[in-house]
Amino acid sequence: MSPSVDPTIPQRDNPRREDDVIERIATIVGQAKIPKGERHIGDDAAVLAPFVGQAVISTDVAVLGVHLDAELFPLEDLGFRAVAAAVSDLAAMGARARAAVVAVTAPVGTDLEELHRGMADASIITNCPIVGGDLSRGRDVTVAVTVVGECPGGGAVLRSGAMPGDELLVTGPLGRSAAGLRRRRDGAPLGDELVVAHRRPWPRQSEGQAARGAGVHAMMDLSDGLGLDLHRLADASGVGFELVDLPVAAGATLEEATSGGEDYELLMATDDPARLRMIFLDRGLRAPLTIGVVVADPSTRTWCGEPFERRGYQHLL
Amino acid sequence: MSPSVDPTIPQRDNPRREDDVIERIATIVGQAKIPKGERHIGDDAAVLAPFVGQAVISTDVAVLGVHLDAELFPLEDLGFRAVAAAVSDLAAMGARARAAVVAVTAPVGTDLEELHRGMADASIITNCPIVGGDLSRGRDVTVAVTVVGECPGGGAVLRSGAMPGDELLVTGPLGRSAAGLRRRRDGAPLGDELVVAHRRPWPRQSEGQAARGAGVHAMMDLSDGLGLDLHRLADASGVGFELVDLPVAAGATLEEATSGGEDYELLMATDDPARLRMIFLDRGLRAPLTIGVVVADPSTRTWCGEPFERRGYQHLL
Repeated sequence: MSPSVDPTIPQRDNPRREDDVIERIATIVGQAKIPKGERHIGDDAAVLAPFVGQAVISTDVAVLGVHLDAELFPLEDLGFRAVAAAVSDLAAMGARARAAVVAVTAPVGTDLEELHRGMADASIITNCPIVGGDLSRGRDVTVAVTVVGECPGGGAVLRSGAMPGDELLVTGPLGRSAAGLRRRRDGAPLGDELVVAHRRPWPRQSEGQAARGAGVHAMMDLSDGLGLDLHRLADASGVGFELVDLPVAAGATLEEATSGGEDYELLMATDDPARLRMIFLDRGLRAPLTIGVVVADPSTRTWCGEPFERRGYQHLL
Repeated sequence: MSPSVDPTIPQRDNPRREDDVIERIATIVGQAKIPKGERHIGDDAAVLAPFVGQAVISTDVAVLGVHLDAELFPLEDLGFRAVAAAVSDLAAMGARARAAVVAVTAPVGTDLEELHRGMADASIITNCPIVGGDLSRGRDVTVAVTVVGECPGGGAVLRSGAMPGDELLVTGPLGRSAAGLRRRRDGAPLGDELVVAHRRPWPRQSEGQAARGAGVHAMMDLSDGLGLDLHRLADASGVGFELVDLPVAAGATLEEATSGGEDYELLMATDDPARLRMIFLDRGLRAPLTIGVVVADPSTRTWCGEPFERRGYQHLL
């Protein structure tokens, strides 16, 4: 394979030896303070202090040009978003992130430091240290992020537990990320509030842990949009739903709130929404928003009485 | 991005929706029997029963055309080798594999079933269930495998613990994988014994756990070849070495044994080689082979008195 140079990928002048690059990257993503008894970057594998309770693991891959438009966004955003997406999967189980490892492919000369700076930023805000990684050349810039976390008391929340009669709630209004992408395409600066929502999604770890503590029956993150993910939750639980409200974020359209993914708000089903609200407020979290109710008939999938079609982002493979 | 069709990648006729593909792949890599209380493929993250002792995690990425020649080997070998390489990293810490997650990118129409069959095969022989994954389109076929494992009594073995006077040993003769690649290039069939050693590397999990039990001071796997990895162990430990023997596998050349990686034999440093041998033999494992001794001076790096140069595979990035 002879990788060609893609003009949209920030380049460095000279190809460098793997060991040298890894050393430089380790200083970018490595933690200032590694807990006693742990060993992070630099060995065959990272060593972590014992986990408490159930262990939870998820992996997410992001490809430049598929998951991020290289002409509209800096390369560090690819790294940030990949780490945030993976941590969000832990949040959706009610788990606490413990560590991330990152596997990167890139054409020779790619600015790997910039890419890893984005990952380091997300690692810091999610309190999820990057403890290891791997690098290879390839034609695409790809970032595969794997995160592990723990549920100290057990009880990781699945998407398959929704029961007829449960109230459906989300942790916030929807469509901010999709609106930010549209605004950026229309020329908005990188610092625009909605553009930042697209570039720097914030995984709802505190909300997820609070929801697990409140005993919600089912939970998932809205990574591909409510129009797809709500159907997935209903499919997994063998139920239907009646949507009554669809909270559209300020600046977003209804279509963006329905089909736009990557907000990473959490979708929850519970038979005790009052308790859920109280626990959220106790912890200083924004009150969750009711969007509808779970019904027994799996074929009932409505929004204000009309059919609510499956729609949202799916890769073709 | 509009991925082009690479004629060396096995194709399927029609692009398919992500959810459909994931369902088919889940039946290939999913375990027949999932332990009670665990949840594998199909949720935001996989849920595992509590880990015992230290947790160990590593990630490895393999790219078709970089890590495997698509004209000489079937696509399933890329999957098998990626999983085996990751599990070998756990073996090198003395850990027991608990789970793997796999993130794949591929051009539209790639035979993802074949790729995942190779991963499933490696998962079975290493007793490391594949519990989750992610998929995206991309120009390259890439496989990022992350494995997590546990060291029940603690004491994961680092590469940094070698002490002057320690004996250096390897778990087997070297160069089989590189010899197999050469033989395949020269027209040997896929079933040739050395070609199989290249296609289907066997991680030394039992040996790694036995070595940890024996209290070896340092350990790593020879993924990039002794000529590079021995220097890495010496660098990490701040020591030098005097090699006296270099066990060349039958059918391999000295160069292949030195610079050829991917044998995944383990390199160990211990002050009690007799105990190590005894524990290996007690467990029915092949006796480890002495290759030299650790010395205090980090600049002493010799083989039979001559300088032993750093050599082996490094990516340019």
